[in-house]
Amino acid sequence: MATVRFTLLNDELQAEVSRGATLLDAASRAGVKLNSICGGEGICGKCKVIVETGEVDVGSTSTLTREEIKNGYTLACQTQVKSDLEVRVPPESTATKGKILIDEDAQRFKALTSDGVGSSVKYEPLIEKYYLELPEPSLKDNLSDHRRIYRELRRKKNLPIMQTGLKVFKRSSSLLRDNDWKVTPTLGRRGDTTEVIQLEGGNTSDTNYGVAVDIGTTTVVAHLLDLVTSDTLDAEATYNSQMKYGEEVTRRIRHGEEDGREDLQKALANDINDLIYALVDRNGVKLKDVTSVMCSGNTAMLHFLLGLEASHIRKKPYVPNTTKPPPIRAAEVGIKVNPRGLLYFMPAIGGWVGGDVTSGVLSTGIHKTDQLTMLTDIGTNGEILIGNSDWMMSCAASAGPAFEGTGIRSGMRASRGAIDKVEFAEGDLIYSVIGDTKPEGICGSGLIDLVASLFEGGFVNRSGKLMPDHSDRIEEEEGELKFILEKPSKTGRDGELAVFQSEIKNLINAKAAIYSGARILLKSLDLDIDDLDQLLIAGGFGSYLNREKAKILGLIPDLPSEKIKFVGNTSIIGAKMALLSQQAYEESREISESVTYYDLIDYPNYFEEFTAAKFLPHTDLSQFGSVDFSEKAGGD
Amino acid sequence: MATVRFTLLNDELQAEVSRGATLLDAASRAGVKLNSICGGEGICGKCKVIVETGEVDVGSTSTLTREEIKNGYTLACQTQVKSDLEVRVPPESTATKGKILIDEDAQRFKALTSDGVGSSVKYEPLIEKYYLELPEPSLKDNLSDHRRIYRELRRKKNLPIMQTGLKVFKRSSSLLRDNDWKVTPTLGRRGDTTEVIQLEGGNTSDTNYGVAVDIGTTTVVAHLLDLVTSDTLDAEATYNSQMKYGEEVTRRIRHGEEDGREDLQKALANDINDLIYALVDRNGVKLKDVTSVMCSGNTAMLHFLLGLEASHIRKKPYVPNTTKPPPIRAAEVGIKVNPRGLLYFMPAIGGWVGGDVTSGVLSTGIHKTDQLTMLTDIGTNGEILIGNSDWMMSCAASAGPAFEGTGIRSGMRASRGAIDKVEFAEGDLIYSVIGDTKPEGICGSGLIDLVASLFEGGFVNRSGKLMPDHSDRIEEEEGELKFILEKPSKTGRDGELAVFQSEIKNLINAKAAIYSGARILLKSLDLDIDDLDQLLIAGGFGSYLNREKAKILGLIPDLPSEKIKFVGNTSIIGAKMALLSQQAYEESREISESVTYYDLIDYPNYFEEFTAAKFLPHTDLSQFGSVDFSEKAGGD
Repeated sequence: MATVRFTLLNDELQAEVSRGATLLDAASRAGVKLNSICGGEGICGKCKVIVETGEVDVGSTSTLTREEIKNGYTLACQTQVKSDLEVRVPPESTATKGKILIDEDAQRFKALTSDGVGSSVKYEPLIEKYYLELPEPSLKDNLSDHRRIYRELRRKKNLPIMQTGLKVFKRSSSLLRDNDWKVTPTLGRRGDTTEVIQLEGGNTSDTNYGVAVDIGTTTVVAHLLDLVTSDTLDAEATYNSQMKYGEEVTRRIRHGEEDGREDLQKALANDINDLIYALVDRNGVKLKDVTSVMCSGNTAMLHFLLGLEASHIRKKPYVPNTTKPPPIRAAEVGIKVNPRGLLYFMPAIGGWVGGDVTSGVLSTGIHKTDQLTMLTDIGTNGEILIGNSDWMMSCAASAGPAFEGTGIRSGMRASRGAIDKVEFAEGDLIYSVIGDTKPEGICGSGLIDLVASLFEGGFVNRSGKLMPDHSDRIEEEEGELKFILEKPSKTGRDGELAVFQSEIKNLINAKAAIYSGARILLKSLDLDIDDLDQLLIAGGFGSYLNREKAKILGLIPDLPSEKIKFVGNTSIIGAKMALLSQQAYEESREISESVTYYDLIDYPNYFEEFTAAKFLPHTDLSQFGSVDFSEKAGGD
Repeated sequence: MATVRFTLLNDELQAEVSRGATLLDAASRAGVKLNSICGGEGICGKCKVIVETGEVDVGSTSTLTREEIKNGYTLACQTQVKSDLEVRVPPESTATKGKILIDEDAQRFKALTSDGVGSSVKYEPLIEKYYLELPEPSLKDNLSDHRRIYRELRRKKNLPIMQTGLKVFKRSSSLLRDNDWKVTPTLGRRGDTTEVIQLEGGNTSDTNYGVAVDIGTTTVVAHLLDLVTSDTLDAEATYNSQMKYGEEVTRRIRHGEEDGREDLQKALANDINDLIYALVDRNGVKLKDVTSVMCSGNTAMLHFLLGLEASHIRKKPYVPNTTKPPPIRAAEVGIKVNPRGLLYFMPAIGGWVGGDVTSGVLSTGIHKTDQLTMLTDIGTNGEILIGNSDWMMSCAASAGPAFEGTGIRSGMRASRGAIDKVEFAEGDLIYSVIGDTKPEGICGSGLIDLVASLFEGGFVNRSGKLMPDHSDRIEEEEGELKFILEKPSKTGRDGELAVFQSEIKNLINAKAAIYSGARILLKSLDLDIDDLDQLLIAGGFGSYLNREKAKILGLIPDLPSEKIKFVGNTSIIGAKMALLSQQAYEESREISESVTYYDLIDYPNYFEEFTAAKFLPHTDLSQFGSVDFSEKAGGD
């Protein structure tokens, strides 16, 4: 036995443990609650301690930095007690986790998902487990352990090219014998090869999880999937921490050029880790059982997460480093799941049309339909695609983050307390709040409704100017007009809920970018809006958009409502489909090859089109013939 | 500028350098001769220093242990000066390298090699470089950097499945642009896929080296190959440092079972590193330009080098962990060449017939001939193979290290100063020495000659007993008879050169193991010695064996001399062929599949056969009808 004494900030606790016990065990016995998400597997790197005196045996510390090692840090779960010890516990190792809000929006899209997934693709995840009962070797059958496993796997499945890393080999001989020749290999698809990424004793084939991630410029969403049942277990979202390096993609690329590639990489990896931690924690899943992560996002995000140079994306001729990176080990970029788990990316189309668009096509089936379809993904980096099974063309329209609830003083994510719907009725604005509480802010769908309703009610004119004479809700603050949606006493936040003139302008600019992009793409194809058989609206709003409001705003073309469908966050739906189906992943590669990129800047009257769209709903009212303007405030 | 002060054991030296310079540069300016084999690439890990005061920027230190990092060690070549510094230089970082003897035996086989290589296989190394001049991207041709490289490679060569690691991607965008779109990818074959293991700027296609290694139980031999010209540049050999854990393979496997897997792994990796260091140093080759290592050895050695469990090889039914490990990164097992260089293994046949036998077949072409051939590889772990293009069968006969000059007090490697030939003439023994100097010891071929000559001269009887009455060269020392080959004054060593009774017995046991193995294998196939069309003798002796002496000793079957050929160290010749030819490597995989393993212990009269072979030349003289015994000493 040995005595381990832990020194915390204001505390000293100790425990008697047997030599060979881990410091994590010792801490638990002493009543020290060390952070540990992975359950002592050395993956999460949260249980850092400093051994001040005494002898220990240290295993893997690959999550520690050189500086930390120099300063004596070790991971409690990877450190064995060899003698009496004095151990210091740094504050960050016992800090309680900040409460991560369950994202209601993500929860809603979680439900939506099952509509898309499994309908048209064969269920066969990129990472699969196969339980094997191997015949015991004999003199007549003395194949190596390695080939014995391969032989049995090939009896179950046609796997032409197999690869296995040294770390898996190293443990395999005793694992096979300790488990009576019953083992479960985990197979991961890597391009045209299959890797045995791990080997577990016994039958673990009912425990296999994956995470799909939509890396948006503003918002990062993650879903936890049970790869055995194909169920989505949970969903979570957070703002992209790269926001501090710039709201727009190009600003972030510039930050990368100024020696900031590591900042960008770490910010994103940490966001994804936070989401995964929240998901596994809430669902009682072990981090080591998360064997795969599928990311979908624009091409710059892909570069940021991999730590690649993105600078050539922003300069003509907009050449990315890669559009189809091979799967890599998630640990290589600091994503903490199973240490040998794989990180996949939805294949991108070009520098400015990313894997999120590929996901959009995959999940809506545009590549298989004869209906002429327009897909509009409304996000910070808005993308528009037109096509069908014969051809597809796509462009990108930078809208800014307004639709995701940021860049607006009263904006927020579509979570509990957010205003998600606004209507103009009986001379005033009425709204609904997610969770039926006092409003704390307003989310994307609420903002779209709000501006449309302000226009309907005559609170703003066609160019989006607030009309102070029209309502006493319009006041001035520091020289700028604002519309007060709710007074301080009735909000769940510290102060009133208001939208400022400049913010309304931002929103109108955003909608103009998307609408003019769609129009230019149509024109460049010599098509008219009426030629479209359907319009699919994708995006991570707070709820399904109100189609009429979106038309009043001039965000989406004026098509009959039955032709307009909301398809939700297709970026994550596509990522989930690809993770759950090798066939879907294969299709996504074909999709990314078959979409042509159209550069809006190439269009001769780009600026005129954009400017014309900066009115409500548009300078050219004939484009919105179905909208009734009789009661709207006139004039510019 | 900054002042860097170096403290050595008995010295203090300093230099003024600009900020940003590496400590390796600073040391060189200060006159401190730091060890550095890789030329400042952070590969060899020899230039360790401790920064005691001042500020530095530390790059990769992956070759340092956790303990070293904790104690402040850093690699001088990876550390940039940021301020005035005090640096302590540990003694091991300036120690002059121990002189590594150029192995004359290895040098000889180096010449032999060219006979085997290139004759029947297509020259196309496993690792190749291709110089590419890429078309600069344009709006019309804006493929990603990644696919631009692939496209151009595929124009040069049919490469279906390509893989590239993240580390290569990370540097590629600026590398392409900084080098005017002229780059040289290095491609390595990994099973049925091809990996871009590195990308260099400009044209480096004329600089590409590989090392072939024969990992013997007793001796490790390495050849340095120019993969561009296919020339063998140099050769080097050393004893296997695992000897300290047991002369025999089974003893070492036991050491591994007793928590010694790491000992075995490190011993071998260090030996190979020492050989590679000597080779690159002598030939002005940069370590980073060594892109591949091909190892050939018995199955246990393969396990030891990879750190795999070998224990099941020694227990029935003798199941190895793997016989055909995939290529891995050499760095994964601590072999220090290009950090992304690949380590290949000749595929093994079974637990006791290794890749060295596969090499033997490959390099002698047994798998392609209709001649019924016996291949005998005379080494510590002797292997015998019989067959032709139709079938092949092989067995292993553990002979011990006597033929490699160890386990014999006067034994030595076949290097300068070794007696390599002995003859009985004019009533006495005469010998020749490698390098024509005073004899320092006796190597394998010399020992075989010696015992045969002792028998010819009547100094030993048929059972190998020294006959003290026959010569005054036979004396007693501490109760054991010995034969004095040379008196102290005439040797290049400290004392006489003698062979002891027990050593002669060991040698006879060794030859009996090999001869009886050959005989049992023939019998089990219902073949007679006369059925053989040829007998190929392989092994790392000091020189070609004297066929007549080997027959007198009873080491090899009594076939007409024209049917007996010496084929040298076929283990390394085969390894070189496979490294230089993808086709040969592919053939080696087929060979390993087509050889049947025969376990000698299965033979009902194994022990009787072995015992009968413990005479000179054999109990059954009729098996050696061509040997003239009229003048030999009779009796047992």
